[in-house]
Amino acid sequence: MSGVIRVTVWNEYEVERIEPEARAAYPRGIHEEIAAGLRGWLGDRVAVRTATLDQPEHGLPLPVLGATDVLVWWGHMAHEDVSDAVVARVHARVLAGMGLIVLHSGHLSKVFVTLMGTSCNLRWREREDRELVWTVDPSHPIAHGVPHPIVIERHEMYSEFFDIPRPDELVFVSSFSGGEVLRSGCCFRRGKGRIFYFSPGHETFPVYAQPGVQRVLANAIEWAHSPEPSLLVLTASLESPIGWFRGQGGS
Amino acid sequence: MSGVIRVTVWNEYEVERIEPEARAAYPRGIHEEIAAGLRGWLGDRVAVRTATLDQPEHGLPLPVLGATDVLVWWGHMAHEDVSDAVVARVHARVLAGMGLIVLHSGHLSKVFVTLMGTSCNLRWREREDRELVWTVDPSHPIAHGVPHPIVIERHEMYSEFFDIPRPDELVFVSSFSGGEVLRSGCCFRRGKGRIFYFSPGHETFPVYAQPGVQRVLANAIEWAHSPEPSLLVLTASLESPIGWFRGQGGS
Amino acid sequence: MSGVIRVTVWNEYEVERIEPEARAAYPRGIHEEIAAGLRGWLGDRVAVRTATLDQPEHGLPLPVLGATDVLVWWGHMAHEDVSDAVVARVHARVLAGMGLIVLHSGHLSKVFVTLMGTSCNLRWREREDRELVWTVDPSHPIAHGVPHPIVIERHEMYSEFFDIPRPDELVFVSSFSGGEVLRSGCCFRRGKGRIFYFSPGHETFPVYAQPGVQRVLANAIEWAHSPEPSLLVLTASLESPIGWFRGQGGS
Amino acid sequence: MSGVIRVTVWNEYEVERIEPEARAAYPRGIHEEIAAGLRGWLGDRVAVRTATLDQPEHGLPLPVLGATDVLVWWGHMAHEDVSDAVVARVHARVLAGMGLIVLHSGHLSKVFVTLMGTSCNLRWREREDRELVWTVDPSHPIAHGVPHPIVIERHEMYSEFFDIPRPDELVFVSSFSGGEVLRSGCCFRRGKGRIFYFSPGHETFPVYAQPGVQRVLANAIEWAHSPEPSLLVLTASLESPIGWFRGQGGS
Repeated sequence: MSGVIRVTVWNEYEVERIEPEARAAYPRGIHEEIAAGLRGWLGDRVAVRTATLDQPEHGLPLPVLGATDVLVWWGHMAHEDVSDAVVARVHARVLAGMGLIVLHSGHLSKVFVTLMGTSCNLRWREREDRELVWTVDPSHPIAHGVPHPIVIERHEMYSEFFDIPRPDELVFVSSFSGGEVLRSGCCFRRGKGRIFYFSPGHETFPVYAQPGVQRVLANAIEWAHSPEPSLLVLTASLESPIGWFRGQGGS
Repeated sequence: MSGVIRVTVWNEYEVERIEPEARAAYPRGIHEEIAAGLRGWLGDRVAVRTATLDQPEHGLPLPVLGATDVLVWWGHMAHEDVSDAVVARVHARVLAGMGLIVLHSGHLSKVFVTLMGTSCNLRWREREDRELVWTVDPSHPIAHGVPHPIVIERHEMYSEFFDIPRPDELVFVSSFSGGEVLRSGCCFRRGKGRIFYFSPGHETFPVYAQPGVQRVLANAIEWAHSPEPSLLVLTASLESPIGWFRGQGGS
Repeated sequence: MSGVIRVTVWNEYEVERIEPEARAAYPRGIHEEIAAGLRGWLGDRVAVRTATLDQPEHGLPLPVLGATDVLVWWGHMAHEDVSDAVVARVHARVLAGMGLIVLHSGHLSKVFVTLMGTSCNLRWREREDRELVWTVDPSHPIAHGVPHPIVIERHEMYSEFFDIPRPDELVFVSSFSGGEVLRSGCCFRRGKGRIFYFSPGHETFPVYAQPGVQRVLANAIEWAHSPEPSLLVLTASLESPIGWFRGQGGS
Repeated sequence: MSGVIRVTVWNEYEVERIEPEARAAYPRGIHEEIAAGLRGWLGDRVAVRTATLDQPEHGLPLPVLGATDVLVWWGHMAHEDVSDAVVARVHARVLAGMGLIVLHSGHLSKVFVTLMGTSCNLRWREREDRELVWTVDPSHPIAHGVPHPIVIERHEMYSEFFDIPRPDELVFVSSFSGGEVLRSGCCFRRGKGRIFYFSPGHETFPVYAQPGVQRVLANAIEWAHSPEPSLLVLTASLESPIGWFRGQGGS
């Protein structure tokens, strides 16, 4: 509702350079497809940049993260190559209020696993399943204007048990041709930050070109963005003098 | 963990007397099948009685409800025939700590709708879908020893959007042959009472004879049962004198 | 983020006409004070009207409710005088996506109790307690820019146990001079609608003139507002033909 | 309801050997006081052992953890001295179904912080506040038989904002003489395991000798214990053949 949302789309950008099928689906890399979709849906509302694993500090030096309102994360083959220092930096920024959108195989990224505290494992099958993404919380802003269901004609199967903490808000549940199900759109709140995990987005099916999926991502950017920080101070454990709040005026 | 759990299985007991298919599936009525399953799984741990719509006060006079630790509810065609007085009595008992298990088409019962505050509508299709019931919370006592998934070869389809409040604990999610999904095992806490909704149980498929389904119901009885009431007093709005808690000794 | 939010502030408007203290605190009625606060904080973002119990259909005929994005509710002495027809209408509008903000003694309004399904009772003491309102979810948009804590120097005490369903999002917890606590800022999602209960706002303390409280209400209007309805259809139970979703194109 | 619950009470056991006040409050160490309380309340239902930091592998070698149903954790000064290998072992056991009770200053233990994914910081003040522990979920088994409130006459103040994920179940909220509040009894579910954080228990106030506090701990042991593991397999990401569930017999 105010100002421009500064988005950074991060991609490890490996599989599109190695596998012909992935390159065919995403010739410019998945990050550019996602960025284009966000610009298309959100227009002047966002300023989108991209960053990749092979850049210095993976394209996420402090000034970039400090100027990022919402970070989008796509990773797959190279989770272990992401430096712990960058992971710690992203983690701290989320707790301080930066939004985070984790996509597809990013469920096993260090960033996501560290924030969740669980294994984040799930079951999968790389065939051509049809995935249907159903809304289970129509009051949620991320569901606004989204088809019920989104139909993804061919996709990798991801299914339960998905070892995540119980989502603070469960927005989407998917089914697959084999009969499996997945909690596929999950919100988490950590510190001052909001996190959204969304499972669609395999590298060889051009899922991010689907309008329904793009709409979810655009909504998620709006939802994850904090236009104004909470006044509350997140400090290291702080000794409070008796009656510390006195004299602060309240309101 | 102590004492016998007193269970009352309530059934409107209409469709089994009217439709030949339902009578074939449940010749003694659905309530007797459920009761037999609970006795088989829980043995001396439970004392199970049944009650039906056509009995005086629908078989739920105050002395019966007062001596019920967990009430199981199956209704389908005759929700409107349940008297408001009995609904109010059940509602009050749940808030005071009685457990409640609502099954299948009971999602539209007055008892459930009143406790939820929403329409409780869902989508349905009466064909022969295969339903798979997947566990999404393996830490939950209702999931203990339950197959992942429970396979129900032929069943009515129930699907999202299911207009319920967000479950306090989501234990199971089902898929159907048509690709639909349902939050099929949902826990709610209201006042001192615990409520579990479980969707399997159509009247013409002998679902309650399946061991996996029986196990869920047995677990749900244990979970919904409060062996000892909370000491907290649920009163009508109560004026508290300043420092009312002083002199109560605390602990 | 787009368009003007149409707000209706409803007040039973009895106590300010009967009790001198309440009239002194709110000479124009509580509804006008709240409306003025919202206009001050949200400016062109909102169009605010008011409605009161003594108007025809309590000022909430269908055309008004149909043109209301967020309804604010303040009631105290006359809950029973609100007609069931208006309650049913408000209830239906919330499930269809209208936002609802329930204030202070509105916890016992028919509208709120019906949506919650519980007694909504709590403990209270009408003395001059100091209330401190603490943020427990700094990621929540309703907490943005809100002091931690809000200090209300003199206020009625409301405390636990507050017999509500577990809030979907708990934003504020209050303490009182006597040592009591209350979950004082609670979000609920029902159908397509979002509901926020906020306990501050006794009729004889000019709480709604405090900037911190006004900020909470302004944030809550933004949060409860759905700029675009979900595409999902909330119908009466609907029989779905096999494969009903085919040919709908998805996205 | 079946079998004996095997409990291990872990204590870093430093402060009681260093500070005279702590030694006076807990001459045998905090672990022995907690263990005695559990034996007193639960009798034959539990087999309680203790373990301390200075033992080999901190008293938690694999055979001990493998034979522990519920682990209780008290730590304060020496969080950094707990080896990462032991932390990883405890973490894995929790995800596999072991219960975990984290007490007081254990909120900053590596075990808890790693499971939560947040900073777990809070505000504190080491004076003599009176703490009142209020039940906000009387349906919860951990609240059974617990005074409302528990009155702790003298205690360290811990208060919000407490940087934890939103609890899956919030059971207790505390207030302090200074007017602060804390979500003081919080349940989390991670993998197959259940975790309960309870804030009372400073080393120089004999809090664990209070019957109300002991009752909470006894209830928490029962709640956190899984009498039977879920059948669901928590594996590393697992490729599922198409129709993998076929032939598994369902139920």
